[in-house]
Amino acid sequence: MRKVAVIGVGCIKVGEHWKKSLRDLCFEAFKNALNDAGIESQMIDGLYIGNMSSGYYQRQEHLGSLVADSLGLIGVPAVKIESACSSAGFTFKEAVQAVASGMHEIVAAIGVEKMTEVKTPDATSALVMAADHDYEAEFGVTFVGLNALIKRRYMHDYNVKDEDIAYFSVHCHKYGANNPHAQYPFPIKLETVMKSPIVADPIRLFECAGIGDGAAVAILCPLEKARELIDEDRIVEVAGVGAATDTIRLADHDSLTSFKATILATKRAVSSAKITLKDIDLVEVHDAFSITGIISLEDMGFYKPGQAAKAAVEGELEKDGKLPTNMSGGLKSRGHPVGATGIYQIIEVVQQLRGEFGKNQVEDAQIGAAQNIGGVGGSVTVTILRRFR
Amino acid sequence: MRKVAVIGVGCIKVGEHWKKSLRDLCFEAFKNALNDAGIESQMIDGLYIGNMSSGYYQRQEHLGSLVADSLGLIGVPAVKIESACSSAGFTFKEAVQAVASGMHEIVAAIGVEKMTEVKTPDATSALVMAADHDYEAEFGVTFVGLNALIKRRYMHDYNVKDEDIAYFSVHCHKYGANNPHAQYPFPIKLETVMKSPIVADPIRLFECAGIGDGAAVAILCPLEKARELIDEDRIVEVAGVGAATDTIRLADHDSLTSFKATILATKRAVSSAKITLKDIDLVEVHDAFSITGIISLEDMGFYKPGQAAKAAVEGELEKDGKLPTNMSGGLKSRGHPVGATGIYQIIEVVQQLRGEFGKNQVEDAQIGAAQNIGGVGGSVTVTILRRFR
Repeated sequence: MRKVAVIGVGCIKVGEHWKKSLRDLCFEAFKNALNDAGIESQMIDGLYIGNMSSGYYQRQEHLGSLVADSLGLIGVPAVKIESACSSAGFTFKEAVQAVASGMHEIVAAIGVEKMTEVKTPDATSALVMAADHDYEAEFGVTFVGLNALIKRRYMHDYNVKDEDIAYFSVHCHKYGANNPHAQYPFPIKLETVMKSPIVADPIRLFECAGIGDGAAVAILCPLEKARELIDEDRIVEVAGVGAATDTIRLADHDSLTSFKATILATKRAVSSAKITLKDIDLVEVHDAFSITGIISLEDMGFYKPGQAAKAAVEGELEKDGKLPTNMSGGLKSRGHPVGATGIYQIIEVVQQLRGEFGKNQVEDAQIGAAQNIGGVGGSVTVTILRRFR
Repeated sequence: MRKVAVIGVGCIKVGEHWKKSLRDLCFEAFKNALNDAGIESQMIDGLYIGNMSSGYYQRQEHLGSLVADSLGLIGVPAVKIESACSSAGFTFKEAVQAVASGMHEIVAAIGVEKMTEVKTPDATSALVMAADHDYEAEFGVTFVGLNALIKRRYMHDYNVKDEDIAYFSVHCHKYGANNPHAQYPFPIKLETVMKSPIVADPIRLFECAGIGDGAAVAILCPLEKARELIDEDRIVEVAGVGAATDTIRLADHDSLTSFKATILATKRAVSSAKITLKDIDLVEVHDAFSITGIISLEDMGFYKPGQAAKAAVEGELEKDGKLPTNMSGGLKSRGHPVGATGIYQIIEVVQQLRGEFGKNQVEDAQIGAAQNIGGVGGSVTVTILRRFR
């Protein structure tokens, strides 16, 4: 298997881009990634577009053709990859395989979601398509409703205080405040989280990722080619990729407080990277809700069940802590443009490994991981990236 | 790049399966493919699900998780691939890369579309999402309307008679009559086609693929592993895969009567297979409309522009003709469950190469090709398969 490297990344600020189209978002992010890599667009010979709900929001499928055209890459093979909120994580995996197989040389993995075509209640209808329509959504449960069941059970099983879970949002906002592409780049107080309205008991508004638009691009090529194209100290190697599924229905999971797919995907990623968890210097986890970020850290194996919320409160997830977590601000503060999120995470890890993450730079970061969840744990990818020099 | 082989195929009869769910369709096709390969489901370590419009028809995205669960493969990485009507062609390509890269060992490429959840006018709304929403669909054009423009221009440019184009449907039905999984397994007369109602002038009802449900599965593994798992005379090698895009908007194509993406994808597939067009013993082309099948044969390079309709009339596409074409009945007679079609085509080519295609078996078929189109030529895949022994 050919080794694969990331040679350029680019994105747009997550936000409500009412006046821009899905094409515009892709174009801006792609241009930024090209500039970052220092290559010409005509060198790209494969495109992967991660997206969940363009059929719903834009009444547009067939994004492969649409996006290739919008980027001036008519002719280049391009296809849409959908895996709910983990669409972009799986998109990156497909792009890695495209290069590793030898079928493609330089590939752009794009994640895009343009949610501000509709009002929030309608976005809720799009999001719940990540859950089981026939056995969950049809009966009226929302996506945050399913996650509320998880938080309730977690508090009960591990006797964890509501405030300690809510603190994860405070942690994320502290770092998101310094992220130029964050949707909500400001710190928040625990009191603010606790006093925010209940969306689905016991989840409060400020424990939820918001609704926003975004596009993020990573450019990949064989490691050997990367050495020809860019400075070696800017090369980030794809060390390992792991993916897994679980039942789409939450009620059928083995546990409400642990996502089996994260456990499996992490094992696969760590094993293919030939490292141990202790080698990981920083992590981006999928905190669609504060409880989701906490459970993710436990499922990945960094903390025992019931321990991660406390770790956040005690400062272990800080920049100079034991495991710097969500230095981007996470889904809560950077934002969660659904089908783009996984590539945002990868960009943030790449920038950390290149030492370009500004105020939130983790000192001497060598290896970083990004975990991206689809649905309530129905699909998960874990990507491990390593600094080449 | 590891060589890849198809070791098992299975599908269900295309039709109106009102009482079955998308899960049911996948399960039946998968079971048939497993039986055909003679392997256990637990040997599968990757799933690709080609589908265009589950978000629209079933209000269900996240098919990776849903289908993995439905097949008893919880945990296995699974993802949905969307490229309009070429979703399944691209799904097969991703599955090939998954194996070729070494990331996966035994992978199932599934195509599925369950269209009979809605009435026909609503299916029309789903289908037009393959065209450009902002510049085409929004102004009221339908998918068949766009193809009608193509047929009109073709008749004008090449002075080809309407009857000669319509004959392509007669040709397909002649062979579809012997295909046990065809939706419309009966012959039709040219007179019947010509007297059928106009859908979008000059395209008549019996020149259009119908609306139906289907699921089709191909199981892939490394060629070397195939030799351990099944009899060598049942191994079909993936000789070459080519894919390409063109502008999603028909008006922006260089030509109305030729699909650049087919030309490019064919060149890439033929080049990667290290063969010439003359080596191809049979072909399945994407006749979503009779004119589409004809143009496809020209774009692939088998006929000069304006010549393929006449070739059909003169018998060159017959089983014992110069280029046996659509021995399955094509999209017109076998059916066109949108996101499944590309895998149906691959199954049919595989069965031909194994000598198992019954009454429509092409004698001594060694190499076959399948061409799958998304939108009005916005995306195309061409897959070339070769008998191993």
